[in-house]
Amino acid sequence: MHSLSMQEKKLAEGLQELSDQAGSHSPSIHTIAEKLPDLNIEIDACFLSNPHATDLFTREMRNDLIKTGDLRKVLEFYPSQNQVIGEILAPCLGVPKEMIFVGNGATEIIQAVIHYFTFRKVIINLPTFSPYYEFVGPDVETVYNHFLQEEDFAFNLEEYIDLVKRERPDTIVLINPNNPTGGYIPLHDIEELVRRLDFVENIVIDESFIHFAFEDESYPLKTATHLANAYDNVIIIKSMSKDFGIAGIRAGYGVMHEDKVAGLLENGYLWNLSGLAEYFFRLYADEEFLRRYEEVRVRYIKDTQRFFAQLAELPGLKVYPSKANFVLAEITNGMTAFDFMSRMLIKHGVYVRDCNDKMGLDGEFVRIASRTDEENRVILESARQVLQSQEESELTAVS
Amino acid sequence: MHSLSMQEKKLAEGLQELSDQAGSHSPSIHTIAEKLPDLNIEIDACFLSNPHATDLFTREMRNDLIKTGDLRKVLEFYPSQNQVIGEILAPCLGVPKEMIFVGNGATEIIQAVIHYFTFRKVIINLPTFSPYYEFVGPDVETVYNHFLQEEDFAFNLEEYIDLVKRERPDTIVLINPNNPTGGYIPLHDIEELVRRLDFVENIVIDESFIHFAFEDESYPLKTATHLANAYDNVIIIKSMSKDFGIAGIRAGYGVMHEDKVAGLLENGYLWNLSGLAEYFFRLYADEEFLRRYEEVRVRYIKDTQRFFAQLAELPGLKVYPSKANFVLAEITNGMTAFDFMSRMLIKHGVYVRDCNDKMGLDGEFVRIASRTDEENRVILESARQVLQSQEESELTAVS
Repeated sequence: MHSLSMQEKKLAEGLQELSDQAGSHSPSIHTIAEKLPDLNIEIDACFLSNPHATDLFTREMRNDLIKTGDLRKVLEFYPSQNQVIGEILAPCLGVPKEMIFVGNGATEIIQAVIHYFTFRKVIINLPTFSPYYEFVGPDVETVYNHFLQEEDFAFNLEEYIDLVKRERPDTIVLINPNNPTGGYIPLHDIEELVRRLDFVENIVIDESFIHFAFEDESYPLKTATHLANAYDNVIIIKSMSKDFGIAGIRAGYGVMHEDKVAGLLENGYLWNLSGLAEYFFRLYADEEFLRRYEEVRVRYIKDTQRFFAQLAELPGLKVYPSKANFVLAEITNGMTAFDFMSRMLIKHGVYVRDCNDKMGLDGEFVRIASRTDEENRVILESARQVLQSQEESELTAVS
Repeated sequence: MHSLSMQEKKLAEGLQELSDQAGSHSPSIHTIAEKLPDLNIEIDACFLSNPHATDLFTREMRNDLIKTGDLRKVLEFYPSQNQVIGEILAPCLGVPKEMIFVGNGATEIIQAVIHYFTFRKVIINLPTFSPYYEFVGPDVETVYNHFLQEEDFAFNLEEYIDLVKRERPDTIVLINPNNPTGGYIPLHDIEELVRRLDFVENIVIDESFIHFAFEDESYPLKTATHLANAYDNVIIIKSMSKDFGIAGIRAGYGVMHEDKVAGLLENGYLWNLSGLAEYFFRLYADEEFLRRYEEVRVRYIKDTQRFFAQLAELPGLKVYPSKANFVLAEITNGMTAFDFMSRMLIKHGVYVRDCNDKMGLDGEFVRIASRTDEENRVILESARQVLQSQEESELTAVS
């Protein structure tokens, strides 16, 4: 690799090894910091979360738990059972508690839905968040619906409905906005899709990034949760990690028909939330907290969209339309995604997601998360320099 | 109920309602505090954990995470994946990382083992920790082995082996020490049992209370973890909630054959530990921390055994032999277990476990946890007064 010192080359090799080991998920910064202590990670732009929401949450927690000494109780005692927390969430989600299944992060809920409700066939869009296909058992057929690069990885409602009618799966999965493309399906289309696909047993709508989506400049939240009230087959899955910036707490919820919730709780999921996750959900049900959160949500959306527009102007990078808090970006100047990722990390301390392992992406793609304004400026400038180094190295090679 | 004021009677009714709702688990103090705000819970003797270990952990956490500001990272970022944490634990557990499955509390591991490895028939001792039978699916037969009251609920090795040979289950479950009886099976007997039951696919040994057990006055830890190395069918399940006093964090591990671990991780359990649970396990792997922990473990065992001896002297209470951090106690003076529990709570602010819902207990049983020395004195004195009030009420009724 051109213009890397010996030590930097060694770090790049170490990174390659960690990436190979991590399978379909990028190695965590914790793992990288431990295995490659010489690397100085300044900004984790691999990581999809609103940093202002983390600020807000840690401030609340400091006041509520640390200053008061109540943190000890949260650590020491058993948290409440699943339905007790469901009862707390019912008013703010607008569904009865019997339809709420809280989870140890959204991945636990994805696992539960795929393992216990999917028996025959699942349709999964590509590219996607890999657990959706990784969690599928050996007796279930997986059909992939490929989003097309030439269509900017957009969702095509009519083609999708045709596919579902042809394949007759028992489960379909829509991530909205989609990970890792950022593509957004308007709520109106989701409603039409649900109306026309009443024969599918499980319509999974993963709204883990919905707090970053918008349909107009007043930015109201466009969740499809209400559809679970009207349609027995709708399953909403929601991670709280991204919008509330608390991936370490592991908190998520599912909204689905009450028989499904009862089925899951009948022989499992007894104390699957931690004390801190319960504390978070009690905050989430608090209107005053939500008002404060709403400010950081809208501010972050605006900053994020401005950042994406700036990234789109960099030569050598093609940025796809996103209403999530990350963009999928294609490197178009001949550099590989791994080289881009490792240079960003080694030279600038910025960790972005190499999408090499993502099924359904053919080319050199990285996913870049939006962080604070200040960090976004560093990410932008680092990306500019890394892309430029490739131009220079090619010029050197030619001359 | 005699000698309760109107308001106290109302609280007792409220408690009855909460107990009915909670099913086979007692309502958490959080739930009680919320639903019955007039109740003043001073001591949770329903709750099975070493309070000195909680002190130790919160001290470590204050130094490592709160004072340094590192807490934010633990909340914000994704924790490491399952096998990364397994690798950290491997040296201190004395097994390769491939045999370690970390869980969101032991209940997640119990659920995983019962749902994914038990297909035909399971033998469960009674009385027991209820998830072991509650998590069993509809196609699996459950055979109960009743511990007998007249034998002090002791485990009988030869009879048990005969039963297993007769029933030919694919799974057997031993909790050692047992919950809620506190009965302990010596390691030597566990070893013999495993040697003679090589035809059982899954020998589950739940050691969630093993840190409180002892075979001599030097109190070395008597875990059977090493057996999982030698026998492919041994599955060790370990909650960290009790011995380390951190139920709110949800941390546990399983040690089992590497094919079983690989099977579980192949399509699930991706990020099932929280950042705090990962922090705890990193502490747990630290020899210096373990040395400090060992002091509070042994001190707590000694205090606990002294407390049990004092409880055993109370008239009206029969205490069964226990090497856990709780005793099963039978109320022998005509008072019901619910009355004892609610009087302890309403009159003295002490919450003990009414065992009315426990399968395999015929009579009026409560389970009383050992807390700090000071709290144990309050529990003891409260129990003395509550039991005495029954004597007095009977005298009044007679006169």
